[in-house]
Amino acid sequence: MNRMPTKAAPNELSITAASAAMAAGDLTPEALMESCLERITAREPAVEAFAHYDAEAALDAARRLSETHGSGPLYGIPVGIKDIIDTADMPTEYNSPIYKGHRLAQDAVCVSRLRKAGAIILGKTVTTEFASTFPGPTRHPRDSTRTPGGSSSGSAAAVGDCMLPLALGTQTGGSMIRPSAFNGVIGYKPAWGLFDTTGVKPLAFDLDTIGIMVRSLDDVPVVSAVLADRTPCVPAHMDSPKVAFVRTPDWDSAAPETQSLLEETADRLAKAGAVVRDVALPPPLDRAGACQRAVMAFQAAEAFEHEWTHHRDALSESFRALIEQGLAVPAAERAGIMATLEDCRAKLPSLFEPGEVILTPSAVGEAPLGLHSTGDAVFNRAWTALHLPCLTVPVTDGPNGLPLGVQFVEPRGDEATLLGMARWSAKALDLPVFG
Amino acid sequence: MNRMPTKAAPNELSITAASAAMAAGDLTPEALMESCLERITAREPAVEAFAHYDAEAALDAARRLSETHGSGPLYGIPVGIKDIIDTADMPTEYNSPIYKGHRLAQDAVCVSRLRKAGAIILGKTVTTEFASTFPGPTRHPRDSTRTPGGSSSGSAAAVGDCMLPLALGTQTGGSMIRPSAFNGVIGYKPAWGLFDTTGVKPLAFDLDTIGIMVRSLDDVPVVSAVLADRTPCVPAHMDSPKVAFVRTPDWDSAAPETQSLLEETADRLAKAGAVVRDVALPPPLDRAGACQRAVMAFQAAEAFEHEWTHHRDALSESFRALIEQGLAVPAAERAGIMATLEDCRAKLPSLFEPGEVILTPSAVGEAPLGLHSTGDAVFNRAWTALHLPCLTVPVTDGPNGLPLGVQFVEPRGDEATLLGMARWSAKALDLPVFG
Repeated sequence: MNRMPTKAAPNELSITAASAAMAAGDLTPEALMESCLERITAREPAVEAFAHYDAEAALDAARRLSETHGSGPLYGIPVGIKDIIDTADMPTEYNSPIYKGHRLAQDAVCVSRLRKAGAIILGKTVTTEFASTFPGPTRHPRDSTRTPGGSSSGSAAAVGDCMLPLALGTQTGGSMIRPSAFNGVIGYKPAWGLFDTTGVKPLAFDLDTIGIMVRSLDDVPVVSAVLADRTPCVPAHMDSPKVAFVRTPDWDSAAPETQSLLEETADRLAKAGAVVRDVALPPPLDRAGACQRAVMAFQAAEAFEHEWTHHRDALSESFRALIEQGLAVPAAERAGIMATLEDCRAKLPSLFEPGEVILTPSAVGEAPLGLHSTGDAVFNRAWTALHLPCLTVPVTDGPNGLPLGVQFVEPRGDEATLLGMARWSAKALDLPVFG
Repeated sequence: MNRMPTKAAPNELSITAASAAMAAGDLTPEALMESCLERITAREPAVEAFAHYDAEAALDAARRLSETHGSGPLYGIPVGIKDIIDTADMPTEYNSPIYKGHRLAQDAVCVSRLRKAGAIILGKTVTTEFASTFPGPTRHPRDSTRTPGGSSSGSAAAVGDCMLPLALGTQTGGSMIRPSAFNGVIGYKPAWGLFDTTGVKPLAFDLDTIGIMVRSLDDVPVVSAVLADRTPCVPAHMDSPKVAFVRTPDWDSAAPETQSLLEETADRLAKAGAVVRDVALPPPLDRAGACQRAVMAFQAAEAFEHEWTHHRDALSESFRALIEQGLAVPAAERAGIMATLEDCRAKLPSLFEPGEVILTPSAVGEAPLGLHSTGDAVFNRAWTALHLPCLTVPVTDGPNGLPLGVQFVEPRGDEATLLGMARWSAKALDLPVFG
């Protein structure tokens, strides 16, 4: 049940495993950081997960921490921060030439909370331009001809490639769940509004959500508690697990391996004792994904008014297209779309039984070929717009040897139920995502 | 039923009345702006509602708008913006010496939405320091020995004194509802998360909410729709109005005139046909106000890390005390408080019948004497922490001839029900808050 061999190198450990080793005196923050930095030195030329990192400073911080024998739920854990999140001690460049060398006076609240919990910010991870679609240099760690996904490209690649046990990303469309699935890591996007977004460059206010990438399900409540500044949630015990298999209106765009993985997963969970039923999304919920596309465009047009007015030439063609698309939506249409989404959010919970959790694809398929695009967010957009917590778990490898995951979505916004279902399912499927 | 005499000066008109007059060709944006500026010139030396305004620029903008015969739901409406909200064309100083002359590159999203709807930003209104407790220079328009309330001091005073038909404020504790009640204006604080807060200086992420101050209930859905970028909500028709009279655990701190106003209002609404019942807030809801105090302190300590580290001497004593108080809360206690509030938010709706709206005090009493404090937020803190939409309506004058209001709170976050109840009640009470 544990993916880590007994002789795992420190960089391969989950947060839970590394914390246990440090508590037992078998590992120090310094040794953990050294191991992560060795991995980064070896792999970064091929992967390019980082927009910025400072090995000396990170090692110094780890050494100082080793001397204090400090505590905190993330004591000594190296973290990567997506480069659209403010850090006072490193540049924050949003993968845009407009912000080359840009440096903020203050950490984002999420970064500050990580530091206070004992974590060490190792570096800034590559984002697509402003967390939108124009890709950064990051390549898939297992196949350099493929995208690692995006927009949280560097975070997913770094955690998947064992450069770090933890990274922060953000999701406005599918920027957490999709790259997490592509890289075989656990990606958790909480309910909208749970994690303080102060200090995160806004892309679309009604959609932007900070999320976490880790390699063990045990790590999720630990990090979530730090970021929400609350007691760790206790994953719900699943007496009579209930699963709603939602193919979504975009099922036909899923790769055959994704379709069979989801159907097989539904079968295996049913055999393990879950009540599994198919649920189709009736109108207006079938349009939530389309609404997300529109909201992202017209709210980005508002959020980037300054860059659009003063630095238009320095924006990528695809970002300019997004803004133009947003500016073109008439006010009455915008208002109608916002109303439709409110209606969707109000109606969704009644489609599901108490305690029932949605099972749905994480992504179209394996990480696609090419670095010009970070893949399709078609299986993520609606859930983001509905503000629901989503979690992807790696289940198997696809025909090209690249990871495939399945996504769980909690229809009432409850983290304890979501994590309880993810744990129960991972055990039923015998996945090495514990410890 | 209409508070405006037929010969009202333009500055005394509500948005609805001014818009109707402009549509009928009886008023131009220029004439409206001139009238507001005349009022400001006459009254500002005594009231000091503005941190900054530029009469020439506002008049120029109004003239240009008059020539275009433009449209938009707020065409030609002069607006005051609380000085913790970014404006690209005016300073944003947060009433702090640290930010003297501070100017942002971009409007806050709410400001940008107002402009696109045709409104003219006339000036920045006085806030307490960082929307916390240390007061600005604003005095109550009806009695210069009294506070106008805060932290949205200038916004409330300016709208109450007919300098403007509309101003934006924010509420983290009681900074919208209390000053609105003190100044005899309608104050509306929507559900948390409804209005985009991008470009508003954060004080406490889980509490900060933008709100609007106006003089007519008809104005509320118009402005709310602009700020939420959605179709105006249609106030619910009250077939069988249901009112939950919530005295709150702080009833004893209400002034006698407030207690009798609330009891009388409950009686009159019952006589007019509402089903009125008393509802007490059971544990843990009786502690929501205390939790709000704690959250505001410890989240402010996070939000002002930079100012605390680098500009401590330039912070007021009361602001330093807030930060110190926040820093002193241990992590386990913070987590417990956040968990209590989540529990409160989950439990509250079940205490109320479908369609039932809460009636509760807006403030302790009339605007208190002295300018050293902006008054007590004891009747606002809990509702802010619960993320619920709140609306105060001016009902009468107190023993000192200063306004008293009553507050409606919608326990499920529904604006249409809240506005429907406010309208039905204002009609039942024969209040001049329409048109």
